Formats: sequence, structure tokens, C-alpha cells
Amino acid sequence: MFEKILIANRGEIALRIHRACREMGIQTVAIHSTADANAMHVRLADESVCIGPPPPGQSYLNIPAIISAATITGADAIHPGVGFLSENAGFAEIVEAHGFAFIGPSPDHIRMMGDKITAKRAMIDAGVPCVPGSDGAITSEEQARALSDKIGYPVLVKATGGGGGRGMKVARSADQLAEALHLAKSEAKAAFGNDEVYIEKYLDKPRHIEVQVLADNHGNAVHLGERDCSLQRRHQKVLEEAPSPALNAAEREKLGAVVVKAIETLGYRSVGTLEFLYENGEFYFIEMNTRLQVEHPITEMITGIDLVREQIRVASGAKLGFDQSHIKFYGHAIECRVNAEDPLTFQPSPGKVTDYHAPGGLGVRVDSALYSGYSIPPYYDSLVSKLVVHGRNRAECLMRLRRTLEEYVIGGVKTTIPLHRRLLAEKAFIDGDYDIHWLERWMDGGKRD
Amino acid sequence: MFEKILIANRGEIALRIHRACREMGIQTVAIHSTADANAMHVRLADESVCIGPPPPGQSYLNIPAIISAATITGADAIHPGVGFLSENAGFAEIVEAHGFAFIGPSPDHIRMMGDKITAKRAMIDAGVPCVPGSDGAITSEEQARALSDKIGYPVLVKATGGGGGRGMKVARSADQLAEALHLAKSEAKAAFGNDEVYIEKYLDKPRHIEVQVLADNHGNAVHLGERDCSLQRRHQKVLEEAPSPALNAAEREKLGAVVVKAIETLGYRSVGTLEFLYENGEFYFIEMNTRLQVEHPITEMITGIDLVREQIRVASGAKLGFDQSHIKFYGHAIECRVNAEDPLTFQPSPGKVTDYHAPGGLGVRVDSALYSGYSIPPYYDSLVSKLVVHGRNRAECLMRLRRTLEEYVIGGVKTTIPLHRRLLAEKAFIDGDYDIHWLERWMDGGKRD
Repeated sequence: MFEKILIANRGEIALRIHRACREMGIQTVAIHSTADANAMHVRLADESVCIGPPPPGQSYLNIPAIISAATITGADAIHPGVGFLSENAGFAEIVEAHGFAFIGPSPDHIRMMGDKITAKRAMIDAGVPCVPGSDGAITSEEQARALSDKIGYPVLVKATGGGGGRGMKVARSADQLAEALHLAKSEAKAAFGNDEVYIEKYLDKPRHIEVQVLADNHGNAVHLGERDCSLQRRHQKVLEEAPSPALNAAEREKLGAVVVKAIETLGYRSVGTLEFLYENGEFYFIEMNTRLQVEHPITEMITGIDLVREQIRVASGAKLGFDQSHIKFYGHAIECRVNAEDPLTFQPSPGKVTDYHAPGGLGVRVDSALYSGYSIPPYYDSLVSKLVVHGRNRAECLMRLRRTLEEYVIGGVKTTIPLHRRLLAEKAFIDGDYDIHWLERWMDGGKRD
Repeated sequence: MFEKILIANRGEIALRIHRACREMGIQTVAIHSTADANAMHVRLADESVCIGPPPPGQSYLNIPAIISAATITGADAIHPGVGFLSENAGFAEIVEAHGFAFIGPSPDHIRMMGDKITAKRAMIDAGVPCVPGSDGAITSEEQARALSDKIGYPVLVKATGGGGGRGMKVARSADQLAEALHLAKSEAKAAFGNDEVYIEKYLDKPRHIEVQVLADNHGNAVHLGERDCSLQRRHQKVLEEAPSPALNAAEREKLGAVVVKAIETLGYRSVGTLEFLYENGEFYFIEMNTRLQVEHPITEMITGIDLVREQIRVASGAKLGFDQSHIKFYGHAIECRVNAEDPLTFQPSPGKVTDYHAPGGLGVRVDSALYSGYSIPPYYDSLVSKLVVHGRNRAECLMRLRRTLEEYVIGGVKTTIPLHRRLLAEKAFIDGDYDIHWLERWMDGGKRD
């Protein structure tokens, strides 16, 4: 097992990793920017190295500085955390080339999954269902019509070079297809100078369901159930729950089996997450994250398994200490992402935390690097705390979440706690009746009130 | 179900009960002394009533003031918490006579268990093993000899009117009996003016093992496993764990069955705890606490059952929602009692908490009413926080406890956190190899170092 791990990250995730190391008897090295000298991950680590000023490009993304910090402190492994360099295959290669273990998957798997096209092809080959569509650009209306008939309406015409919703048109029936093609191409031409478009099945009200996997270097892989992350704003997850209120046991088991088979086929190692859209009983792969997810604690709460510990263990070459039959799911867990932001405008709200009091009691977990007197710097992601609550069932979990949101005090800065409180009063959320567009629709409605 | 509960207590236990009420959708009324106006249990409750000045006799033990507070706020039940009036049968009667529900057992059961003699007789009748001994005073050396031969040496000769270790002598064999009788009687006469003595089997190195029970008003009773509370200083528990590192599954099951049968025989309702001494595979009942215990969270952590919620449910007349077969035990839990005391001299250390930061992360629960800026008043019990940690097994639990004790910051006052840190470095504790005298022996040794 490793003796000393350098944690190449900051904030609550650096603290999360530090905690796992401590519980394994492993020493920790924190790195930090000049803006983070007083951060909790620095205070608690055995050693710390300042690697440069903000913004991240000069410190948390500064690969030579990180490698130097690992070298001078004698670390034997580097944990990239979440964000920053965690899905940078080049970084993983450099880490390994310098003789450190990279706590994550192989650089090849990071690279494969980092490219949407190769990821989708690999998953199709491994038997994972993907959103059906054209294999490349559409060259004629006839081709578009034949393909759309085959995959079924509605379909989405999307600019190959597009993004941000521009150059995207929905055709709900064959009559609408010609016009959708025409409009999408015109928009794409105007916006990106390239009128190439492709076609995909359009999902009206999908849920975002993702499956946590864990695999060692000896061919053993398990899944740890799904998370429902449909509550999103601008593609940013706001609140996640496990299990999904929309899935039944048979769907869960089927999806888990498909995912594990794919992971074994790919020879993937470490923790990872396969993200799917889910509609009308069907799952469609969208992407794989080859790292820890922000929302990993809800999986830990319902399984009792420490994912960071397991990630470190398998990175050291250890075999998984359990197989699928050992993984049991207990109750329900929800995570609220607490951001230092205005809960109405979502403008970041950095600054000094004048009061800090985290909720406690049964079934409550707080992962946060905040403390009274800490100044949240303006340079980084605004996530400052993850409030995670467990209950024997979803109803108990919701009640517990409600009371913990009442107790939570973060003074001096604005946070998204009031948004979560409002969300918990909303019938559709209470009923688990939401899709990936629901939160934005609901927030727009709230603004008009 | 109740709509509004008055919580007749203070500090972390009042907060604990408030949290359970909140999660059940029940409104809360806090009572408080003038010294506790800024306490967290007051801040979070829906309503609060000041019932008098410290010390407790004028407020938290002031029954007319408490009844008045319940009347004016329209509460329909009163929860007595732990300590104060929680085992006062007269209070329970007054509560019920005024038309409020008492969240606890019947006054008769409180009274029965409050008297050591009637409690022991009731338990013997209900088939619970007790420390064997004379049924009353010893009248002759011959009687003492016959009894001691029957129960086996060593035996303890104890003054009937005694206490505090005076008038107590151990006879390890028949040769020592006459002298032990003589010395005990002389000491008793000198100390208490009464030379009456009785004889009990003497346990050299017993453990304190207690069993949590829960029963409704419809004849249903379950046990929730045992807690090992052998780590005590002057009969005060310092750290508790569940399950006991000393028991095997067969002993656990046997003890649980004996206890449940007794509870059913007695017709007991509510939560309660039977305390035993345990030595050489035998259990000896010592007393029953007819209330919630300070250390109840470790049972909650290994069973997932909210004991306060269940206590409230059964007090409202509801049936237990599960039977013994539904109760599963997961992993291991340890509670550290964090007292505002000097960790070497145990002198209370009231005063202002200048910094407060509770540990977080997986498997960690903090039950505390402290916050930054709060002033711990000098009038009450010095327990200010319960740090409770869960792990999949005892080794994981110990590692987690170690890291949380490193993270925990309570500035401005002295606390027993350093004592717990020292304890966690001690081989006998790590090995689970301790009895009820171990902690005091260890602390004495530490002082001589």
C-alpha cells in the first residue's frame, strides 16, 4: 500500500481524499495556490506545498509544479480528485512516467472516454445501448428520412460543429423533417460556418441516470447501483439521489449487468461512472467519467462502501475485497450541492464565512472544507459543501433533508441553501416526478411568480 | 400522532429530540433556564418558554413551571430527555394527570426500576440472571459460609447501608471469609453506625454490557443488540461501543432473548436499557434505565433505527413497525463523550467556545449543541458533544475515530478530546481488552508517567 499520497486538488474534495488516506494510515501531501494557504485541506495534511498563484492555470493545472511537489515530498502516488487534471490523460501519463502511481484509470481509458465519438463506439462494441442516430454527417434528405423512419420520431437534427443549443432542431414527424434539416443547416452555417448536421433520436423528458462502477487490475468489476442526477441547471447537477425514484429493481439489475459487462470488456480499472439518459424504460449511454464524481457520497451512503478508499486500494494493485453479491443497498440518500452563489441569480458569492454551523445527528453527512472565519476565494468552483442525508426510505430521507437544511448556517456569503429549501417544498420533486429539464422550467416559473 | 412536543431538557439531548420531532413533522417547544436563552435547542425549536434561573432545581427540575409551559403552548406530549426528570415516576404521573402524554414508560415501571431491590426481584422473577448473593442481611458466619460455598468464591461482603466502597471486603476463599465479615462489619459500624452486611458474588474484571430494548403498548418488544460501556471513570461512561468486542453471536442472541422475554413479562413500554456485568461468559443484571441513554446513537448507527422516533411513536400508541427478524446489525460504532473538562484533572471548563468545527465525512455523526461563540454555562453536566463514528468493522471504526478526533476543533474551553486521542493509541483499547476498572487503572498509570 502507498505510504504517502499527494492530493492534486483543493476544497472539499481534497479534504475528502485526505480523510480516506488518514483512515488507511497513509500520509498526505496537500498542494495549494497562494489563495488557498489557509484552506482546510492544507491545515489537515501532513505536508503542504504552495505551487503557484491563482488562477488554476498557474497552480492546480500546473503539471510541472505538481510533479515537483510530489518529488520533493517523496509521495508515491498522486490523486487527481475531481475536475482540474482528473480527466487529463497526458497528466496521468506524466505522473506514471515520473514513477508515481496515478490514482485513477489507465491514460488510454481516460483518452478513450474523453472523446465522445470513441467513447460511444467503444460502448456500442461492449454492448451498451446508446442514443440511436447517424454514424456521421447527413448527406441527403433521403438518407435523413430513411434513418429517421428507422429510429423513430421525434428526431433531433444537430450541427456537427455545434454547441449551446444552436443548430439544433426537433422533427416530431416525417412532415417536419425537411424543414428541420433546412433550419438546422442554416443556423449551423451562420453560427459555425459549417452546415454539416447529424441526426439522433430525440428524448423529450429523459432522466439522467448514472451507474457507479469499481474495478481492479485483476479483471474484477462491480457496479454500486445508480444515481439520479436529473435535477440540473445549465448542465450542472444541483441535487442527486440514490436510488433513482424512477427505476424498478429489474431495470436496476439489468442496467447494472450491462455496465459491468462493458467494464470487463474494456478492461477498465478504478472508479468510474457511466451516464445515461433514461426514457420510457430505455437507457441510452451519453458519456463515461473516468474519475470520482462529486455526487459519489450518496452511493457510499446506501452501500457503506468508501469509494475513495477502494479507488486507492485498486490503484495500489490490490484486488477488490468483495464481489457483486456482497454489495447490498440500504435505504435512500440525497446530496444537495451547496454553492456560494446567490440562490436566485446564481452569481458567485465569494468572501468571508462569518458563521459556520453544519447540521448533525442521525443519517447526516457533511463534506465541506468551510469553517468560521474562512474566506472563500473568487477563483474557483463555487461548490463549498455537500450536504448528504440518508434515510431508511425516500420519505424519511426527504424529512431529514428538510430539517438539516433548516439547521445549516453559513453566514457572510450567499449560498444555494434557500434554493434547496424551496425545492423540498415542491410537489413534483417530492413525488420524484422530474426530468432533466424540470428544474430549469420550475426556476423560470418561480421567477415569473 | 402528536402535533406538538415539549422537550423538558437542554443541550445536545434536547437538540437530538428536536431533530426527531422535525423529521416526523411534529412541532417542538423548548424550555430553558435564563442561562440557556441562547442555547441551540432554544434557537431551533418552534416555540420556547423560559422556566426559571439556574441551578436546575429552579428550572429544569421545576415541575409546575414545566407543566405550565406545556399548558400555555398547547403541547400534547412531554419528552423528558436524559437526566433531570427522565426517571422521576412522580413527574410522569403529574404529566399524565394534566392530560399530556409522557414519552417514556409507565410511572409504575419507572418506580419499580428506580428501586434496586424491587428491580432485581422483578428481573429474577422474569428469568433474568442477577449477581447471586444473600437475600437480605447475613445473620451468622455459618449462613455466610454456606451461601459462599454455594455461589462460589470470590465473594464480596458489603455493608447494607454502605456506599463509596466503604464497608466492602473481598473474600477469595473460605479461609478469608471470617476476617472479611469481621472487617466489613467493623468498617460499616464505624462509617454508617450499622454493621449489617450482605454477600454477593464478586466479579474481578467484569465488563459493562447493556442491552437496548424497545416495546410498544400492544405487547410487542424487541432488542437492538448490546453496547459495551466498560470504559468508565468514577462510574461515568467515557466511550461506548457496539457491538461489544467481547461477545460472540451465540451470547448476543441468548442475552437478547432473555431480555426480550423479561420485557414482555413485565409489560414494559418505550425504550429502555438493561445493564449487566459480564464475566467468564456469564451475565449478571445490575439495573434497568427506563429512559433513553446518552449512548443510544451507537445502537442507531449499527441498526439504522431512530430510537427517539420509535420512542415517540410508541408513546403515541402506535405499534412497532417491525419485529426482531427485521433488525439487522451493520458494522461497528463507537461514541466518544466529549466533555468540557480538563482532560487530566477532569475539572469542568465552562466558558466561551471561540472556535467550533465538527468533523464530517463518511460514517461520522456529531450530536452537539455547540456553536462558535456559544458560552457553555457552569451549571450543568459537562457533556457538550457526542462524536459517533461508524465503520464496516471495528478496525475501520477505530481508524475513522482517530481521524475525526484529529479534525475536531473546540476552541476556548478545555475538552476531553485529548483523552480520547490518547485512548485510541492504547493497545489494550485497540485490542478491545478492557474491563470496567481498566480506564481508571490506565489513567493512574498515565499520571505516574
